[in-house]
Amino acid sequence: MLKELRRQVLEANLELHRQGLVVYTWGNVSGIDRSLGLVVIKPSGVAYESMTAEQMVIVNLEGELVEGNLRPSSDLPTHLELYRSFPSIGGVAHTHSLYATGWAQAGMELPCLGTTHADHFYGAVPCARALTQTEVDQEYEKNTGMVIVETFADLDPNAVPAVLVAQHGPFTWGKNPMDAVRNSVVLEEVAKMASITLGVNPQARAVPQYLLDKHYFRKHGKNAYYGQN
Amino acid sequence: MLKELRRQVLEANLELHRQGLVVYTWGNVSGIDRSLGLVVIKPSGVAYESMTAEQMVIVNLEGELVEGNLRPSSDLPTHLELYRSFPSIGGVAHTHSLYATGWAQAGMELPCLGTTHADHFYGAVPCARALTQTEVDQEYEKNTGMVIVETFADLDPNAVPAVLVAQHGPFTWGKNPMDAVRNSVVLEEVAKMASITLGVNPQARAVPQYLLDKHYFRKHGKNAYYGQN
Amino acid sequence: MLKELRRQVLEANLELHRQGLVVYTWGNVSGIDRSLGLVVIKPSGVAYESMTAEQMVIVNLEGELVEGNLRPSSDLPTHLELYRSFPSIGGVAHTHSLYATGWAQAGMELPCLGTTHADHFYGAVPCARALTQTEVDQEYEKNTGMVIVETFADLDPNAVPAVLVAQHGPFTWGKNPMDAVRNSVVLEEVAKMASITLGVNPQARAVPQYLLDKHYFRKHGKNAYYGQN
Amino acid sequence: MLKELRRQVLEANLELHRQGLVVYTWGNVSGIDRSLGLVVIKPSGVAYESMTAEQMVIVNLEGELVEGNLRPSSDLPTHLELYRSFPSIGGVAHTHSLYATGWAQAGMELPCLGTTHADHFYGAVPCARALTQTEVDQEYEKNTGMVIVETFADLDPNAVPAVLVAQHGPFTWGKNPMDAVRNSVVLEEVAKMASITLGVNPQARAVPQYLLDKHYFRKHGKNAYYGQN
Repeated sequence: MLKELRRQVLEANLELHRQGLVVYTWGNVSGIDRSLGLVVIKPSGVAYESMTAEQMVIVNLEGELVEGNLRPSSDLPTHLELYRSFPSIGGVAHTHSLYATGWAQAGMELPCLGTTHADHFYGAVPCARALTQTEVDQEYEKNTGMVIVETFADLDPNAVPAVLVAQHGPFTWGKNPMDAVRNSVVLEEVAKMASITLGVNPQARAVPQYLLDKHYFRKHGKNAYYGQN
Repeated sequence: MLKELRRQVLEANLELHRQGLVVYTWGNVSGIDRSLGLVVIKPSGVAYESMTAEQMVIVNLEGELVEGNLRPSSDLPTHLELYRSFPSIGGVAHTHSLYATGWAQAGMELPCLGTTHADHFYGAVPCARALTQTEVDQEYEKNTGMVIVETFADLDPNAVPAVLVAQHGPFTWGKNPMDAVRNSVVLEEVAKMASITLGVNPQARAVPQYLLDKHYFRKHGKNAYYGQN
Repeated sequence: MLKELRRQVLEANLELHRQGLVVYTWGNVSGIDRSLGLVVIKPSGVAYESMTAEQMVIVNLEGELVEGNLRPSSDLPTHLELYRSFPSIGGVAHTHSLYATGWAQAGMELPCLGTTHADHFYGAVPCARALTQTEVDQEYEKNTGMVIVETFADLDPNAVPAVLVAQHGPFTWGKNPMDAVRNSVVLEEVAKMASITLGVNPQARAVPQYLLDKHYFRKHGKNAYYGQN
Repeated sequence: MLKELRRQVLEANLELHRQGLVVYTWGNVSGIDRSLGLVVIKPSGVAYESMTAEQMVIVNLEGELVEGNLRPSSDLPTHLELYRSFPSIGGVAHTHSLYATGWAQAGMELPCLGTTHADHFYGAVPCARALTQTEVDQEYEKNTGMVIVETFADLDPNAVPAVLVAQHGPFTWGKNPMDAVRNSVVLEEVAKMASITLGVNPQARAVPQYLLDKHYFRKHGKNAYYGQN
């Protein structure tokens, strides 16, 4: 079942690999069929080189196995928490890409230092707080998702489809699995750019709100005029 | 019409991609036919992998569509402003390449720290000031061009065919579209070199005028002795 | 003899090259057959492009040549010391990869700044002390091994299968030659990540013990739940 | 004439390109036939993609054209000065590789921070002083060579076959053209490593003399024991 979504999830996982964002089996992408309430996710610890659409695992929103012979990615409970709390998203991606993870390890939000960032994320990419010992010891992966959701209490996950989890790394999401991967690629690029900028000028600051508005809404929303109709 | 210029603009856009200066559809190159007063530019948001010469868009210097089924790059008004104000140029390129954009986000001009820079740019690559709210809110892309032109009030755009726009990124130009791309490649390389230099020695300073003169005029102008006749 | 182990050692050496961890002939990998007490290692200074399984050199644990027409890697005595002192390991790898070597030259241990590190190494990767003049002048390569063993007096080499030797570079080990190479790849990646993190936030600190425990034991030991059974 | 040396010089120039050390036509390699007193060098400003052995230019040690239809590299007088003053060398290479040039622009010698450096260069790679205005205005390229020679007044060019010219970039040399290129590759690698090291620990210092001796003489001279006989 869900043949097309399996194919999309496979393709999105392979794209993560092609874009150079993952080493070995680090990283995972999932997609959701909202009408059926089913999630398709990469199996845990399987090599990208030989991965097939048939190996993708199907679970319901409680994480119960619906179809598949392999264990799902161990980060599955984080993905599920995001699907439950952000009803508009259709795909989730997680990587340990170098610069986004470097910033997450630094425990710092990624400020919007220029229009490359503003074109894709409507403001700083927030850094979720570190988990407490209790949150780590019990249902760690689920709590990772809950801490992300907590971080977005006053933020729109569609306008900023990415987060840095402190001491850990980035999660991104999007309309579908490939869109989530695209946000991972952009996040890595703007994180690297931000490191370069602060290396040159440690006093560099976020762009003003009107420039953020201009670039973000040039590409998103009903008045967008970037791209083709 | 303008079959050869379309081909050149396509090739220059693809070269931008091959050189690793653009991610996804970021970046655009245009060329001008001065005798006809027509500009050929990349369409907005089209993937490099499947781009064809036929998709290139032709507009006049007022930005009115002359030929083409796709929307032109949203940065078109910036290109047009440069063509109007710098009558000797034949091509314009815009990228979000990592280091040049990193310096632009830092709001700093790129000093001429060595002969690699001096071989290509006659002095520092200036950083255009950030736009005001009014300039951003009204005719943003046109005003981006005007701020670049303002920056070159006392500079020769043929001797320094590149600019960093604060909070945004680089624009370069040249005799033709491919030459503009070449200047983007060189700018990225010297921006990266400058970051490395300042990382090692924050006190590093620009080369003296006589070394700048020597290297620049070794490659440019009537007394050049680099390359073949 | 040892045809299969020769093949594994060749493959592991080639993987080092494919992963971009070695320039020219820098770096070497070996494997051990514990039942025979024999070690297979790369020959010294042979190009990766034309390397064959037949060229691998077989020695006993005293370093005496058992089979082969070429000289073994000059770092052989370091490998032997590790095999003698760490009875559970089956492969050793040595590289001059950029970031791991950069940290070794800095004379600093690599702190566990995040979960990428914690997934693979159970705590900081230690930096072995610089050798004394006497240790360098006499049996240098053997003493390099002994200083590594000294560094692990209170550490479990299976839990932290990597070391940075001050002024020199990394050594890693594992269950078999390819596992040792995998640890070299991961070490380079987390060393690069750590440099990025400290570039952004020089105050970044190691993750708490409970997060280290969670991630390390998610992937290792009898309660691991990462990957497939 | 000099068919074999032309082939070697071509191959060495192409290797520079393959190793990613040059952008466009930046960089040049030459070789010398000491018995004939003739130098073969890359032509100026010719693309690597279409370069042929026939295009290599032959000159004598006074720089007079002996054979060839193209202009020699504009850096020829620097190469000639090195051949005249360092009688044991057989090849010279010049690049604008990122890290070596970054250090040259910083005006700093490259300290020997570890064994990777010590394996190839017997001590710091010196930084030649900046040229005076007179030296730049008159016979600039020849004076560049003379300043390098001046830098080696108390240094053995065979033991340290590389230099950083302040405000400019690296020159390397070797037994033959390919050996000179190899030294350019190693110089770039150790320059990058040094930047990483100082980024992590600005207090990092050069290795002690006994470690330098050990590593350098393990690979060079009559007591070398690295590689095959």
